[in-house]
Amino acid sequence: MTTFGESHGPAMGGVIDGMPAGVSIDMDRLQRFVNRRRPGQTAGASARDEKDKVEILSGLWQGKTLGTPIGFVVRNTDARSADYEGIAACYRPNHADFTWEAKYGIRDPRGGGRASARETVARVVAGGIALQALQSLGITVSATIERVGKATSDFEQEMASAASQGDTLGGVISCKVCNVPVGLGEPAYGKLHAQLAAAMMSIPSVHGFEYGDGFGMASCRGSEVMDVFEKRADGTVGTSANHSGGIQGGISNGEDITMRIAFKPVPTLMRDVPTIDRDGNPVTLAARGRHDVCVINRALPVVESMAALVILDNYLIRKTNVL
Amino acid sequence: MTTFGESHGPAMGGVIDGMPAGVSIDMDRLQRFVNRRRPGQTAGASARDEKDKVEILSGLWQGKTLGTPIGFVVRNTDARSADYEGIAACYRPNHADFTWEAKYGIRDPRGGGRASARETVARVVAGGIALQALQSLGITVSATIERVGKATSDFEQEMASAASQGDTLGGVISCKVCNVPVGLGEPAYGKLHAQLAAAMMSIPSVHGFEYGDGFGMASCRGSEVMDVFEKRADGTVGTSANHSGGIQGGISNGEDITMRIAFKPVPTLMRDVPTIDRDGNPVTLAARGRHDVCVINRALPVVESMAALVILDNYLIRKTNVL
Amino acid sequence: MTTFGESHGPAMGGVIDGMPAGVSIDMDRLQRFVNRRRPGQTAGASARDEKDKVEILSGLWQGKTLGTPIGFVVRNTDARSADYEGIAACYRPNHADFTWEAKYGIRDPRGGGRASARETVARVVAGGIALQALQSLGITVSATIERVGKATSDFEQEMASAASQGDTLGGVISCKVCNVPVGLGEPAYGKLHAQLAAAMMSIPSVHGFEYGDGFGMASCRGSEVMDVFEKRADGTVGTSANHSGGIQGGISNGEDITMRIAFKPVPTLMRDVPTIDRDGNPVTLAARGRHDVCVINRALPVVESMAALVILDNYLIRKTNVL
Amino acid sequence: MTTFGESHGPAMGGVIDGMPAGVSIDMDRLQRFVNRRRPGQTAGASARDEKDKVEILSGLWQGKTLGTPIGFVVRNTDARSADYEGIAACYRPNHADFTWEAKYGIRDPRGGGRASARETVARVVAGGIALQALQSLGITVSATIERVGKATSDFEQEMASAASQGDTLGGVISCKVCNVPVGLGEPAYGKLHAQLAAAMMSIPSVHGFEYGDGFGMASCRGSEVMDVFEKRADGTVGTSANHSGGIQGGISNGEDITMRIAFKPVPTLMRDVPTIDRDGNPVTLAARGRHDVCVINRALPVVESMAALVILDNYLIRKTNVL
Repeated sequence: MTTFGESHGPAMGGVIDGMPAGVSIDMDRLQRFVNRRRPGQTAGASARDEKDKVEILSGLWQGKTLGTPIGFVVRNTDARSADYEGIAACYRPNHADFTWEAKYGIRDPRGGGRASARETVARVVAGGIALQALQSLGITVSATIERVGKATSDFEQEMASAASQGDTLGGVISCKVCNVPVGLGEPAYGKLHAQLAAAMMSIPSVHGFEYGDGFGMASCRGSEVMDVFEKRADGTVGTSANHSGGIQGGISNGEDITMRIAFKPVPTLMRDVPTIDRDGNPVTLAARGRHDVCVINRALPVVESMAALVILDNYLIRKTNVL
Repeated sequence: MTTFGESHGPAMGGVIDGMPAGVSIDMDRLQRFVNRRRPGQTAGASARDEKDKVEILSGLWQGKTLGTPIGFVVRNTDARSADYEGIAACYRPNHADFTWEAKYGIRDPRGGGRASARETVARVVAGGIALQALQSLGITVSATIERVGKATSDFEQEMASAASQGDTLGGVISCKVCNVPVGLGEPAYGKLHAQLAAAMMSIPSVHGFEYGDGFGMASCRGSEVMDVFEKRADGTVGTSANHSGGIQGGISNGEDITMRIAFKPVPTLMRDVPTIDRDGNPVTLAARGRHDVCVINRALPVVESMAALVILDNYLIRKTNVL
Repeated sequence: MTTFGESHGPAMGGVIDGMPAGVSIDMDRLQRFVNRRRPGQTAGASARDEKDKVEILSGLWQGKTLGTPIGFVVRNTDARSADYEGIAACYRPNHADFTWEAKYGIRDPRGGGRASARETVARVVAGGIALQALQSLGITVSATIERVGKATSDFEQEMASAASQGDTLGGVISCKVCNVPVGLGEPAYGKLHAQLAAAMMSIPSVHGFEYGDGFGMASCRGSEVMDVFEKRADGTVGTSANHSGGIQGGISNGEDITMRIAFKPVPTLMRDVPTIDRDGNPVTLAARGRHDVCVINRALPVVESMAALVILDNYLIRKTNVL
Repeated sequence: MTTFGESHGPAMGGVIDGMPAGVSIDMDRLQRFVNRRRPGQTAGASARDEKDKVEILSGLWQGKTLGTPIGFVVRNTDARSADYEGIAACYRPNHADFTWEAKYGIRDPRGGGRASARETVARVVAGGIALQALQSLGITVSATIERVGKATSDFEQEMASAASQGDTLGGVISCKVCNVPVGLGEPAYGKLHAQLAAAMMSIPSVHGFEYGDGFGMASCRGSEVMDVFEKRADGTVGTSANHSGGIQGGISNGEDITMRIAFKPVPTLMRDVPTIDRDGNPVTLAARGRHDVCVINRALPVVESMAALVILDNYLIRKTNVL
């Protein structure tokens, strides 16, 4: 997958290379999946209405993939760039303004430009297609919210509380992939969990990744986290527990793949915040624009998408392990 | 970097492509760095003596890199394959025996074959060279042990305790990279922290990665984790705090890069453990071979190596951001 | 560069990743360059009018590159798919119909689908941008027609002659890159000429590539093709001749890079041709659709584009040869 | 495949990643294949005796591939570096001395260092392994000499004649791959012939590549080079002729793949030749060292190796075209 697009440019889009031929794609289902990350869908999400209509430009014909690159665009229809004029010369804290400008010497300040989380719309288009391919193989991916800020339930109340103070929240998403064939993942540098980590850490705002028992495993003794092999009634080999999160030695073992992804709080507060401008002068950023208090809801299909892309890739590569 | 080698084959080795020309390499310093991951160096480490003499086969001439691929080997001199004969037909719990065999239909059972952590010797050779290149640029990398099992100090005592019960331990390593130039990292899929995550998760036994405040950030409000920009006396731009761990929008901001890596407990216990053999029959694995109670000590140079390789790569790629 | 698009789908397009930031792009000049490959421009070209209006969707802001991916589309506006209905179940000789169908099990028959040379419109968009970047560095790329069929001059007459017989022509294009810095190209597998060969051979209909004296060199003695080094008045090192075509050991030496590219005749004749259908039954394909007698004119900007993309890539990579 | 090694360093070597598991490798056959490129084997070859004993360090176990990286080295045992001392500060014409030094600022002058054709020993090791894998699939690769200098027969006489004058020769090799399955090759940028071209052009001294009727096709009319499809007695689809060289639209069509590769004359003459030194002063290089009059004989297994590596790669990738 290759993607492009700035938040307030004409469109976001991308190209999916290497999608197998002959896979049926249900465009309605794809659009509904993409809609899940739209703002304005749920409590805690911004009111910006982008429509996010997916336009497939190639690679599909008569409802099936051709094996050729799938090009697609999603137009940016609700961009109010004027909202951002005041901040073009400032570096918003915990945003990418400073680093992008330092790196490239130039920066599109409108809506965060390429650094905006709007970029993830291209991921859910590609991911939605990958998910349909996986589903035809019986493989399912599902992400759920585990934590919003300090709350492990009553998420809407926690968001209302933060919003009332002009503050924002992060959270943790857990993701599970079921019915994964044994043998996916490359054993040394392309370990399945290393690929999943890179995929998840590439989602804006993600600060942590773990699989199986993760960081908790570091505090356990070996005898406490053993996944003992057993032969099952259906003749397959399984494990009695799943501390390993479905991956051993970087390769899927057939158990559910489990992982957790940590998101930092939304960096844009609805309060005045101090910063400096391009010349180093202190300035105060007044709260403006339309921003989420918490992105966790909208991030669910993004997490599922990144998981699906990695699993499908490895499903295909796995075919090359023998002549 | 490309590496090769099975634990009990003739040698481990690798090739470093793309190392810049004209970098002075001190072979004594490199060997001392590689020795840091040798067993038998510290409490909690196995007594296997591998010598791990680095032999550089190309790419260096008169003490400097030529810009050509650096090929190297480290011979396996102390392999007692007979130790493993009994387990060739069994799947050790939490090891890669089952997944490798399922994936490839064939498996070198001696010492875990390619899945052995012995593979990391190639990483420290490559990493040690990368570290010398970084040091010539003033960039430093240092990893420290933060936790061994449940202990955050008295690590040797914790290891002795586990060993006395035939049990094993995991732990957490924190790693810091200092004096990183602003602008390293690709902003979308090649975010600097995504690359670091993939690199760390590719180390055997790693189950979690976070940077900056990591998972802890998910429980904070936005106002609690702001890294406010400020102009420093020397004219550079910095941040008042470093919750972001030196990376914003996937790009280094000049602050220290901080990250934490979680290792699971060593999977091989010094106790009898139940499992099944290739035919699905239950068997008991008796404790055998020479194994670490905890790999955290030996993993320190491996973590530093992976960090160094990623940072050096991005230092070079960053040169291509402008014409 | 990644591209997508079927000949008679909604659009062709692509994404350019890694374009340096801050490069000024003149959109008028880009459109004029793209127009050079349009049909209906010159003798021997088809009358199909596609307009080929380039729409940039990202990566440019206020006339300069942002360093972000440049996404673009070119709409397909003149597709008469009905022209192709009769041939959907047949394999046209010397076309990709049979191989695509065998490979993917599915094929978009309209206008050759993805296999159509219409795909090259995306190459000239990307190439046109690369050329502007190169020109800002003083590097120029120019392709000229050396041969059309058996003619080395009077090209229009040769095309008229072939057309009158319902026949088609191929030809040879020579391409020269001037003011190339010394040191571009990777010495073993990424030799500059190997990259150029792959780029040129990826253009539809190309059957041969050579650089410098090429195939002719194979018939010479070593003493006849020596490029003797000499120190020039301006202090630079040059060669007295340029049999090597500006590349030695896979690396540019500062002389003009010269190469020749051979195109096969257009495979679609304006005559009846025999073939078989999907079931193996013999059928006769009647001449239909609008086709070029010879693509050499339209291929000139495609050749320049592929050369520009390779040279710019290597210009950037060359920056990483030293710390 | 990744390779390393300087001509007069300790060893040449490489790593083959992605070789499928379970392939039987006959080491004697591999060594005999590697010996075919050794000097001193045939008329026109140098007398340097390198032995070229292949040492496999990983990836093979009990005669079969493990699916893990295959690391290997070939020691340099007959290096007489003193032969090259006089030329360290000079740029030999048509060699890579000048370009390497300009690129990297440093250069191993002994025997051409990494730029030496000795590098191809690593290619024949990897290629010999790929060939055995292909042979188990029934696919064969064979290269033959088509031309040595101006001679299309009496090759030894032509070489003796050139040698007697202290001169050198190039030539043309033709290569054929038989029993290739339909469907190999990626249709746009990874066309099978584009990959073959890049592979062949990466061999030292190669200046031209063509497939099928190649450059000759550019002088033909479309009606003269038609490969008409026909259904064969065995039910498969074939073509009546093979002007296309077994590849249509970048994808193999099941016919023999045919290609021709042009080699320039050996650049080192056994005569005095003029050049300049590092400071630009004119100097005369006296004939020294041991050099081939013509490399065509020794290049045969190199050409077969590169073809085998490309075909095997595409054989594996082709498995991913459908789910």
